[in-house]
Parts: sequence; C-alpha cells; structure tokens
Amino acid sequence: MEKIKVCIIGSGNVAIHLIKNILEVSELTLVGVFARKVENISFLVNAQILFSDLSQLPQADLYIMAVSDDAIFTVSNTLPFTDRLVVHTSGSQPLEIIAAKNRRGVLYPLQTFSKSRNVNFKEVPLFVEIEKETDRKLLEKVARLLSFNVYPLDSNKRKALHVAAVFSANFVNYLYGMASDILTTNQLPFEVLQPLIKEVANKVQELSPDQAQTGPARRGDYQTINAHLQFLESNLKFTEVYKLLSNLILEKYGKL
Amino acid sequence: MEKIKVCIIGSGNVAIHLIKNILEVSELTLVGVFARKVENISFLVNAQILFSDLSQLPQADLYIMAVSDDAIFTVSNTLPFTDRLVVHTSGSQPLEIIAAKNRRGVLYPLQTFSKSRNVNFKEVPLFVEIEKETDRKLLEKVARLLSFNVYPLDSNKRKALHVAAVFSANFVNYLYGMASDILTTNQLPFEVLQPLIKEVANKVQELSPDQAQTGPARRGDYQTINAHLQFLESNLKFTEVYKLLSNLILEKYGKL
Repeated sequence: MEKIKVCIIGSGNVAIHLIKNILEVSELTLVGVFARKVENISFLVNAQILFSDLSQLPQADLYIMAVSDDAIFTVSNTLPFTDRLVVHTSGSQPLEIIAAKNRRGVLYPLQTFSKSRNVNFKEVPLFVEIEKETDRKLLEKVARLLSFNVYPLDSNKRKALHVAAVFSANFVNYLYGMASDILTTNQLPFEVLQPLIKEVANKVQELSPDQAQTGPARRGDYQTINAHLQFLESNLKFTEVYKLLSNLILEKYGKL
Repeated sequence: MEKIKVCIIGSGNVAIHLIKNILEVSELTLVGVFARKVENISFLVNAQILFSDLSQLPQADLYIMAVSDDAIFTVSNTLPFTDRLVVHTSGSQPLEIIAAKNRRGVLYPLQTFSKSRNVNFKEVPLFVEIEKETDRKLLEKVARLLSFNVYPLDSNKRKALHVAAVFSANFVNYLYGMASDILTTNQLPFEVLQPLIKEVANKVQELSPDQAQTGPARRGDYQTINAHLQFLESNLKFTEVYKLLSNLILEKYGKL
C-alpha cells in the first residue's frame, strides 16, 4: 500500500506535536516541513526534508498549515502550486480563509499544546472540514491514523467549539492563576491545590458540570460568600470575579 | 498498641469519605457515628455504633464533626460531655466556632467529595489546627494515618485557602458548565471537551498557571476575541464573563 505523503507548514507547538505523531504512523510519510526558522525544528526533522523556502516544498497528498491565524491567508496564497489539498489547523478561522487556488480543508486538534509536555495525540479530538467531498476520504483517513476521536465539523460549529474551549481551558487556567496568587499572598504553596484541581477536572469526565457543582454559591451559603468578599475586599479584580461568578451560580441554582 | 478511638458526627459526603477511610486504617477504630437520619449511612456503618441521639455517643479520643457550617456551633454545644477533643472539618469556619466546653481543633480536607465518586483519601491534603498544644500530637497522628499530605494551618490562612479553592474548583466547574451550554446550543457533545479539560488540569501539576496560560487573550489576539464576542452577543452572561476574564488576561500579560 502506498504511504500518504504529508507536508507540514509551521514550527510552533501544534506543528511539533503533529510532526512527532506523523513520524510514528507507518501509513504516513513526512516528505517536507516548512519553517521560517529551520533551527526551531531541526531537533526533530531531518535537514533533507526541512525547508525555509515555500517554493522548495515537495509534492504531497496533503499540506497541513500549522501557522498562526493571521498568517493562514498569506502563507496559503504564497504556495507555489494549485489544486492540491491544503488544510489549516485553526479553531477560530473559517475554511475559506485559505487561498482558493488549492483544494481546502481544516484539521483542528482540540488540545492545549506546550513544547515541554508530551500529549497522547491519539486521544486528542480532531475536527475535520472539507471543501470538496472527493477529498473527505483522504483527510479523514489521515485524521483517524493520528487520533481515535475524529469528528466532521463545519466552520460555524468549530467557532462554537473554540469559544467553549476558551471558557473551559484558557479562563479556567486564569482562575488557577488567581487561586495561586491568593495562596502566595498568604505564604501557602500552590501544590496544596493540585489534588483538588485534578479531581474537579476528573469529576466532569463522568458527571456533568451541573451534577458536579459544589461550593458556597451552589448551596446559597451567603454567610460564607460575604466572609469571602470581606476577605477579598482590598483587591478589586478578585472581588469582581468572585461577585460575578457567585451571582451566576446563585442564579443558576435558584438561590438568588 | 492501643487503637485511637474516633467518633464521626455527620452523614454527608465528607463524613462518608472519612468513615470509609477510618475503617481501612488499623491504628484507628471507629467507635461511634452520629447521624440525624441513620438510614443515610446504614449502608456503611454497623447498627451497633450508629446513633441518632448525641447523648448516646460513646467515649472517644477524637470527635470529628463533618456537619454543615451553620450546624457546627449548635451541634458542638449540644454534646453531652466536656473537655474532650472535638474538631470540625470546615474550610471557612474558625476554630472558635466550636463550643468552648471541649478542647477544640480543625481537620480540614481540601477536596471536592461526591457520594458517587471514590477519592484516594491518602492524597487529599489535610489541614490541622489545634487549640491546646497538648492535643496536637494526637490530631496530627490521626491526620497522617489518613493522608500523606498533612499541614498545620491557622484559621486565617485556612480562610485564604478556602477562597483559593472556590476560585480553582467551584468557579472552574461553573466555567465547564458554561462551555457545556455553548456546546449543547450548537448540538455538540460535552465529551469533545473532556481531554482538553483534563490536560489543562494536568498541566498545572507541573507548570505554574502563569507558564501554562494560552489562548487569544494571552496572545493579545483581538481579532479572535472580537469574533468570539460577536458570536456570544445574544447572551449577556456569557458576554460578561468573556469580557471580564479576557480583559484580566490581556492586562496581566501587557496586551491591553
């Protein structure tokens, strides 16, 4: 069986995790990687297939652009070929942002990637969108070789998903940071919160967030809420977040 | 060696998890459990040591009150004995809320407990406060038999810790719920977010929340932020939370 030839365009966190995983799948062959700064990625990719000039990218069945949102149009427009399958990996950009001279698609991995952490890519949900139905089979095949969780998803729903991810990942992490600041101010190490944070995330792997909700606002415990607000009163931003989220929880559970 | 005799007062989630774990520690012996409704807990505790009348509670080395915050004073005041060691398990109440006729202390487990989920109690951080130094040895010994992570903590710092827990657990779970609502409205299952939620929590077991922060606000990506606000504009509460938290992140990382 002939291997599927893939090129990666980009050298950021998503590109690195994609490359690592493509290299592990025998049905795929990585034929080229484009990086503006090849030194960012030379630890991972052989020099023979690493290019800093788009025009040198070899022929492939699939080009995956893992570049920043605002570079997608320019980079796709600069590609020195037409009518090949080119996909982006962005949660917030529509398929149409890719220059129309190629056949277009999206392969959106819903995960937070850091250079310093390995992620089990097989468990990362991949969301696939395709312009021409004749390309669906190939793109979905590649997606399934990389992950157990592949879903078709149009640009509109992908935007909803991306917004939901901001709430449940970026904002959540910011709240971890607020908690960390409260602890530091009181000479307590962040480590004491780690088991709680883990369990709260594990709980919603089985229960719905609605079933899992606990805390003073959930119980309508105004005495504790007021004591907390008094504790926080010298800090405007902590007070603001505490008030807004407590009020929303009180409202949701009919305790207002 | 003589076993340490413990009574539990209460039959809620904290009481149940304490009882389960005390029953597994050979150095401890559960001599009595008080429950207003004994049927809540009869699945776990032998009828001979289960009481619905406080005056029947047997002699013990330690009485642990796992009751709601607003019951601590009344219950402790109703205890038909004096000068024994009585502790509460609340994050937000001072030691002094326990009626002064007994020797007082606090044993605060920092975790979210649900009836339907087993928690590895050995990993739950336990925070200990004691009125009389002569009681410290016993309370800390019991705590260390139950958990690997035992810390001394005064009432003031315990309040700080409890506030931090509200941010990183209750508010975080509410954000999971908002994300779930966004997905439901768009006919997407909550399951697609579960790997992301888990990884965000796992990340801060190694990195600080500050190092782990990602997302449009972290990058100062106003184009995506504005697209998200437009997407959310028909819903006031989603818009309010999105704006407040994005602004705080933009401010924190100098992108405002």
